[in-house]
Amino acid sequence: MTQRKSFGSDNHTGAHPAVLGAIVEANAGDAVAYGADDWTARVTAGLREVFRAGGGAFLVLTGGGANILGLSLLLRRHEAVICADSAHINTDESGSAERLVGAKLLTVPAADGKLTPELIEGQLSGRGDEHRSQPGIVAITQATELGTCYTLAEIRKIADFCHANALRLYLDGARLANAAAFLGCSLAELAEGVDALSFGATKNGAIGAEALIVMRSGLEADAPYLRKQQTQLTSKMRFVAAQFGALLQDDLWHANAAHANAMARRLADGAAAVPGVEIVHPVQANAVFARLPARHIEALRRDWMFYLWDERESVVRWMTAFDTTESDVDTFLADIRESAEVSRVT
Amino acid sequence: MTQRKSFGSDNHTGAHPAVLGAIVEANAGDAVAYGADDWTARVTAGLREVFRAGGGAFLVLTGGGANILGLSLLLRRHEAVICADSAHINTDESGSAERLVGAKLLTVPAADGKLTPELIEGQLSGRGDEHRSQPGIVAITQATELGTCYTLAEIRKIADFCHANALRLYLDGARLANAAAFLGCSLAELAEGVDALSFGATKNGAIGAEALIVMRSGLEADAPYLRKQQTQLTSKMRFVAAQFGALLQDDLWHANAAHANAMARRLADGAAAVPGVEIVHPVQANAVFARLPARHIEALRRDWMFYLWDERESVVRWMTAFDTTESDVDTFLADIRESAEVSRVT
Amino acid sequence: MTQRKSFGSDNHTGAHPAVLGAIVEANAGDAVAYGADDWTARVTAGLREVFRAGGGAFLVLTGGGANILGLSLLLRRHEAVICADSAHINTDESGSAERLVGAKLLTVPAADGKLTPELIEGQLSGRGDEHRSQPGIVAITQATELGTCYTLAEIRKIADFCHANALRLYLDGARLANAAAFLGCSLAELAEGVDALSFGATKNGAIGAEALIVMRSGLEADAPYLRKQQTQLTSKMRFVAAQFGALLQDDLWHANAAHANAMARRLADGAAAVPGVEIVHPVQANAVFARLPARHIEALRRDWMFYLWDERESVVRWMTAFDTTESDVDTFLADIRESAEVSRVT
Amino acid sequence: MTQRKSFGSDNHTGAHPAVLGAIVEANAGDAVAYGADDWTARVTAGLREVFRAGGGAFLVLTGGGANILGLSLLLRRHEAVICADSAHINTDESGSAERLVGAKLLTVPAADGKLTPELIEGQLSGRGDEHRSQPGIVAITQATELGTCYTLAEIRKIADFCHANALRLYLDGARLANAAAFLGCSLAELAEGVDALSFGATKNGAIGAEALIVMRSGLEADAPYLRKQQTQLTSKMRFVAAQFGALLQDDLWHANAAHANAMARRLADGAAAVPGVEIVHPVQANAVFARLPARHIEALRRDWMFYLWDERESVVRWMTAFDTTESDVDTFLADIRESAEVSRVT
Repeated sequence: MTQRKSFGSDNHTGAHPAVLGAIVEANAGDAVAYGADDWTARVTAGLREVFRAGGGAFLVLTGGGANILGLSLLLRRHEAVICADSAHINTDESGSAERLVGAKLLTVPAADGKLTPELIEGQLSGRGDEHRSQPGIVAITQATELGTCYTLAEIRKIADFCHANALRLYLDGARLANAAAFLGCSLAELAEGVDALSFGATKNGAIGAEALIVMRSGLEADAPYLRKQQTQLTSKMRFVAAQFGALLQDDLWHANAAHANAMARRLADGAAAVPGVEIVHPVQANAVFARLPARHIEALRRDWMFYLWDERESVVRWMTAFDTTESDVDTFLADIRESAEVSRVT
Repeated sequence: MTQRKSFGSDNHTGAHPAVLGAIVEANAGDAVAYGADDWTARVTAGLREVFRAGGGAFLVLTGGGANILGLSLLLRRHEAVICADSAHINTDESGSAERLVGAKLLTVPAADGKLTPELIEGQLSGRGDEHRSQPGIVAITQATELGTCYTLAEIRKIADFCHANALRLYLDGARLANAAAFLGCSLAELAEGVDALSFGATKNGAIGAEALIVMRSGLEADAPYLRKQQTQLTSKMRFVAAQFGALLQDDLWHANAAHANAMARRLADGAAAVPGVEIVHPVQANAVFARLPARHIEALRRDWMFYLWDERESVVRWMTAFDTTESDVDTFLADIRESAEVSRVT
Repeated sequence: MTQRKSFGSDNHTGAHPAVLGAIVEANAGDAVAYGADDWTARVTAGLREVFRAGGGAFLVLTGGGANILGLSLLLRRHEAVICADSAHINTDESGSAERLVGAKLLTVPAADGKLTPELIEGQLSGRGDEHRSQPGIVAITQATELGTCYTLAEIRKIADFCHANALRLYLDGARLANAAAFLGCSLAELAEGVDALSFGATKNGAIGAEALIVMRSGLEADAPYLRKQQTQLTSKMRFVAAQFGALLQDDLWHANAAHANAMARRLADGAAAVPGVEIVHPVQANAVFARLPARHIEALRRDWMFYLWDERESVVRWMTAFDTTESDVDTFLADIRESAEVSRVT
Repeated sequence: MTQRKSFGSDNHTGAHPAVLGAIVEANAGDAVAYGADDWTARVTAGLREVFRAGGGAFLVLTGGGANILGLSLLLRRHEAVICADSAHINTDESGSAERLVGAKLLTVPAADGKLTPELIEGQLSGRGDEHRSQPGIVAITQATELGTCYTLAEIRKIADFCHANALRLYLDGARLANAAAFLGCSLAELAEGVDALSFGATKNGAIGAEALIVMRSGLEADAPYLRKQQTQLTSKMRFVAAQFGALLQDDLWHANAAHANAMARRLADGAAAVPGVEIVHPVQANAVFARLPARHIEALRRDWMFYLWDERESVVRWMTAFDTTESDVDTFLADIRESAEVSRVT
């Protein structure tokens, strides 16, 4: 732990005060367990409404849990998932999709982390051949793992392609709020054409709350059983619902995301002006990917927490969060500038 | 939700104030995610110490998650788990053990929910026969799903039998605190001879916190990966650790459990005196199983929340919790008495 | 290996000469692999016809393979299979259903190995409860593992119950031929109301050939992929098809089964007359289950190959096959009589 | 089926007469099932000896079955398999490794289908990071799917790298015979340093017989159970053993492979001389990969059976087999020459 603000991850933050307030408030008397309580009823109804979700909303505990629930709901046993090679389900979930769902991942190198109909089509050659795992799902991430956003038009094109090709579309929305804030659109607009998606609250100010949103009516029947079977059904569900409730209230989720995005923008703009620093992906959410000389990175990491994304490429990732302040960014920028000079000199 | 105290489940309670306090207190600045924080370091060290665990402690989010982590750690692909037919892993986890671990459950009818070496031995006949799923784990629950406790001597006998027969011993400790309070022994004593066990905090006053304790040194190597892969690794782990921290502080876990047990005892004693009410299992934790006439049950359920455990046998389950008061019990008892008469008359 | 006829298993036999002849005959020139050959086309068309199967016929290599293919085709991820506790999928497939399909088996003690609507209904109590694995399939065996047969009326009742209760019906037909011969009905009649079933040739004179018959149209779409994925697609399929072809020719399968049944009948009738020998299940296929004094069993096993089915109950299993002769049976009966006396004397 | 020799696959051939002869010969009287027979004892002892295998030999039915058995034996639940992207387990087994074993495949583009220590090392960056599926196995194919062979020195380097890096080494030997014939070395030499490998007989003249060879002593304990559980244990095993017996006799396997290799060599040499035809991989086994103009391919496919390997690259695969004759090759070559001219003219 550093006393300076972490730019390591939006998971390094604590909770938004309103979220903690809601948890404390929900601690009133008894409530039926496993989601049959009033808080959960209100929040899942609220989520269904903001997403215009025909199938329902299911609260879970982790982003990986939401992804596995979504994939297991959409995938038949012999099918594969087409995704970018940078997808979280491919790189950061310890093989869950393979072991828990039995899915083969057909991964595609994708610029800025974004799939396109053309990239998807390139994975369909083995269709109808029993020797090949059959593509069944396309999985995209919004905002992507590389801090970029699909436009609504891009998602629509992918969704149309999927449905024209008997593919289901899953969206990993661990940072969906950041995409909505960047694109200036509603959650329902973001989810249009998608069969199921996750909606993350944890990185947005919760202590641990995610939701699986099932857009297509009829698809939700197995979800309660799969959620329980896959160990993502918590007994005192009201405390998860309360977190979502706080973030949905007056669109706090949106304010948090917009703020985090603005801080990333500020950081990127400032850093781009520093000699030797190159921003390598469009900054469209709360992540900044920058290429720096190795000695510069080394100097910065003495005092600041962030991840070396790609050692060979000398690329780092800086994340901002709902509680990153302008002053945090400016202090960091000052050090980026200063250490740039120092590293050059030496 | 009823305004009257629920006797439905120890999951119907909210959180202990000290738990909420610890969560709020943990919300201070940034912390590295996924358990590499100070709170988690302190609490897992604490758990290792109280259990004298050679392998380590791993925080998870649900009791089902802890069980699956434990079983997946102990079981080879072709092996089976011997358990009581009343075991939670058999009846209440929606087939997780089968689907996520691939385990066959060899279930045994067990009086008061307790296995014995003799019952276990009866499941070993197919050993060495490749056509049979090979018994690899014995899984017991402490306190059991029927509100009873294994004595230390009983566990020792089972553990000795297991180790003499190349079986590993797993213990589902969702209510281990209640067993410790009933038996008047330490957690370390309860875990002696066990290879891995869960230790539940949720039913004991947390909002959602469980731990897998690996007793046998060397066995823990795969646990971090399996926890992540099985979607039980939360990013803001400090908030789970904080909950455990509050319960470990001054043995609050023990006080909570002892109180819940005492309330169950009070309820059982009172109810046993009511004509037509029969207590069907020894009351050794915080559950009371009682046989009542169907009309009596029906009358009581109009005003009180509790579960009909076995409709055919006319048996109900009444659970108490850390926040059940003597007055709650006495009010309930008064109604049990009153409705007993009313049901007889009509 | 003994020079005397084995009564151990119908798997102890070699192949029927016509089967070997067909294999040799199929060895003519090249043929496209993986079932896209003429032999396979003819035989699967033939199987579809004799079963009046709407979905199709898929050749596989083992009975376990056929069962797993059928279950994986019919079962959703969160569902369970209701079966008799004596079912082969429960006792003799090393946990395949659990590990490969992820299915929980809800096992029921069943007299003579036969399920009934009442026994099935007893397993439906947890329906709609997300904590319980949801019953999805009923699996029966025909002829059963205990040598008995369901009547057509019994199967019809089970099928009607299943379909009225949103359950799919799977039938393990490793010895379906024996049932058809006993009941004097067609394969199509035996399969009526069943969603999918296996049809075994191996025990009926093949060297290794089984089929999954999908009765319900529309259900077969995933079968080719699942068969391949589950490693039951052999490349030189024509040799499997040829085996079936030989057995379908002039209903050789029926003649083989009828003969094996007659030999079991002859053996049972003869043995029943021996003092101390009790036939414990109706003899309706090619198996005889008999209770004998332990010393009598011991004496017999010195010279004859058969299995001790249940040591505690002192029950043995004697199997006959397509190539068991009347003389084999009579020689065995003579020894049963003789050793009965000897064991009594000593 | 074409009357002309198929160059589509070595799976398009029938069986070698000696294999059929051995099957017929094995059809003598009764034999204990599931591999407890004399044929199996002799053949598995023979395989152990020729491979100098410390662990044992296990007969199975399909190459996919052998691979899954090997991987499941070597892989822990949270581990991944490093393999070439052209590996059969990646491209042609319908997702078995993922669904049946739960393995993530870390695929690497590999020239001529061959991995190197450098390529393997590139996949080890996530080691020790619980968010990444942990590399546990390296899987190579010999001869590769592209008709090339690892030299003994290359395998030794990979094996040394694996063992220095706590990786197990699996070898898919569906065409191991062809590699042995090409390299002029023994099966034992080919398997040195490998932990487990498959040894294919089907493409070498059997009707359907493969073996898993476990080289490392102690590793074989779970194999019999996993083989049964994974539905690869056939009851009348003597007929599988007999096939291997015929091929081991007087090294028939070697003669078959050497002949197939020679035919591929002859075909490649002849084709390379045809204008417009380019051989794209070294011809070191029984496959020829050639680049031809699309119109040339089209013309040839009117009369000959072979596969278009890569449509975009205009590459075809021609396979030879134990029964391909010089005359078959020469007739094919004549057509290749003739159609080359015709396609150019039109």
